[in-house]
Amino acid sequence: MTTLLIEAARLQETCSRILQHAAIPPVDADFVAQSLTEADLRGIHSHGSMRLGRYVRELREGITNPSPQIRSLEEGPAFARVDGDGGLGQLVGRESMQVCIAKARQAGSATVTACRSRHFGAAGFFALMALEHDLIGVTMTVASPRLAPTGGTLPLFGNNPLAMAIPGDGEFPLLVDFATGSIAAGNLELAAANGTPIPPGVARDLEGNATTDPKVALQGTIVPIAEHKGYGLTLLIEVLAGLLGGSPYFGVEKKQVDAHVREKGIGHFFMAIDPSRFMPLPQFKAAVAQMVAQTKASPRMPGAKEILLPGELEARRRQDRLRQGIPLAPSTVEMLRKLGRECGAEL
Amino acid sequence: MTTLLIEAARLQETCSRILQHAAIPPVDADFVAQSLTEADLRGIHSHGSMRLGRYVRELREGITNPSPQIRSLEEGPAFARVDGDGGLGQLVGRESMQVCIAKARQAGSATVTACRSRHFGAAGFFALMALEHDLIGVTMTVASPRLAPTGGTLPLFGNNPLAMAIPGDGEFPLLVDFATGSIAAGNLELAAANGTPIPPGVARDLEGNATTDPKVALQGTIVPIAEHKGYGLTLLIEVLAGLLGGSPYFGVEKKQVDAHVREKGIGHFFMAIDPSRFMPLPQFKAAVAQMVAQTKASPRMPGAKEILLPGELEARRRQDRLRQGIPLAPSTVEMLRKLGRECGAEL
Repeated sequence: MTTLLIEAARLQETCSRILQHAAIPPVDADFVAQSLTEADLRGIHSHGSMRLGRYVRELREGITNPSPQIRSLEEGPAFARVDGDGGLGQLVGRESMQVCIAKARQAGSATVTACRSRHFGAAGFFALMALEHDLIGVTMTVASPRLAPTGGTLPLFGNNPLAMAIPGDGEFPLLVDFATGSIAAGNLELAAANGTPIPPGVARDLEGNATTDPKVALQGTIVPIAEHKGYGLTLLIEVLAGLLGGSPYFGVEKKQVDAHVREKGIGHFFMAIDPSRFMPLPQFKAAVAQMVAQTKASPRMPGAKEILLPGELEARRRQDRLRQGIPLAPSTVEMLRKLGRECGAEL
Repeated sequence: MTTLLIEAARLQETCSRILQHAAIPPVDADFVAQSLTEADLRGIHSHGSMRLGRYVRELREGITNPSPQIRSLEEGPAFARVDGDGGLGQLVGRESMQVCIAKARQAGSATVTACRSRHFGAAGFFALMALEHDLIGVTMTVASPRLAPTGGTLPLFGNNPLAMAIPGDGEFPLLVDFATGSIAAGNLELAAANGTPIPPGVARDLEGNATTDPKVALQGTIVPIAEHKGYGLTLLIEVLAGLLGGSPYFGVEKKQVDAHVREKGIGHFFMAIDPSRFMPLPQFKAAVAQMVAQTKASPRMPGAKEILLPGELEARRRQDRLRQGIPLAPSTVEMLRKLGRECGAEL
């Protein structure tokens, strides 16, 4: 499978025009397109422009609302519950994180849940929004069921991600961003499309038997990281991002996913903390810088060229790809070109 | 190695009297003794009464302050930074979580960091305090360095734990509580004492080679769960529980641990969220109950007798042990009897 190099600005423009053609207002379309392009720039293709096909389908089928009234249903000094009204998840995430940031600046810390939302792309994108205000940002979301509880065989819990961005003055933003399963669902799809096996130990069939066949894995379950620990962590995220906002995704069967998303939507969780309320900001940033420097300088295993901090590899990829273009899978390019032709946007 | 069955009330009384003999006021001694006994009741022996020997040593050597002035250094509507003043971690944790709970009831959610604290036992103990107020409780703490960053060989990050308790009306409190390493340091110590090997894949020597020798592992590193994901999670906890409060534990060498704890102490992180501000409390609890019921009733893998929820096994152990007594390792009983004799407290 060969990949094509696409210029980031061009990719973002094409995605935006495709979304505008699907009745999304230009400013909002630009924001969603930026979120997808940023994911591709950072190498998180599973949450990049390859998702646009699904977004457009859901907009056309009325699963996603192109003109939502996104607003707070409940709020107080340090919390809010945002109703996404069925809008694109990125727009719900933007509003929710903005509310969360404003409250954290007032109260020192704040939590916001979102309900009736849609797929919002990469969780880290919203955590990073907090850095512009020198806040710690945390994001979680529920995702379609892929993980079984320990001892179980059915996919009940999502491959739910947790992201946290940490303010600092380093060369790259420090960003922890990972999901609770041993492999990304997007990588199962990629392996299935390519006919390549997946590593042993990361997936099971519906009877609980280990499998290296990605097609079987897509119908079965992804093994939680560290088994019961990953099970505990995905349940924790389901509670904060799903139950607490009123849009759980827990236990929904595969064939019910479209109906569930249309009728109930999905939930997210956002948190922001202002380190400058705990200590002078330069002192906090210096402590972060010291941790980064000491980690990078520490002795390495044989064969390890470098010790990376969370988010460092992605930031480096982003720089490279801004210069050289983004390598996109042919299937993604084909989908974008097809959608682009319908609205006169060339990729 | 044979174990002895000790009545919970008797264990708690003995632990309290030993602490009182080390100049801890009775009410505080009772609270710390309760925390250790609860850990033993739940089967978390690594954070139970076996820790008392270390606590007493640190009190005697002036590493821990028997009469700390625990107070907030900074605070606002939804946050506080608590100074532990070198006191026992359980007392710092109690005060911090009480402050956090009070603020969360006012503001909807709150975060509290603690600095200059000591070992506080099991993280879940403080998360559970939130349940008495129908709040979600979250606790994290830094721990002595045991984990290397991905590609590194030196223990820079702690086997840091994350705990979250979830309000509900079930038969047992829902409690996610796990550490970021593949094996508990306490289990390395136990295996070393017994001369038994540890499972493959959980530890490395200081050159980065895999080991099943617990003595080598104690001098080396514990493998983070899911490698780079566990590394990311322990760094996240180090930032929130360590750097943000002003008492990191990152990068401290083994031989410097006592001096570091004496001079700088360690840090914790607490969060409480009031679900009743997001939706009517019965609605939240019903959603939790539905998740629990659907998980328990879901199909099982061959050989799996039951699907357990996080905290269920520990709650069941607690009930059994309240009736039948707590099985304590001979080394723990010997230590407690020796300390008990010094103050006329029989075990």
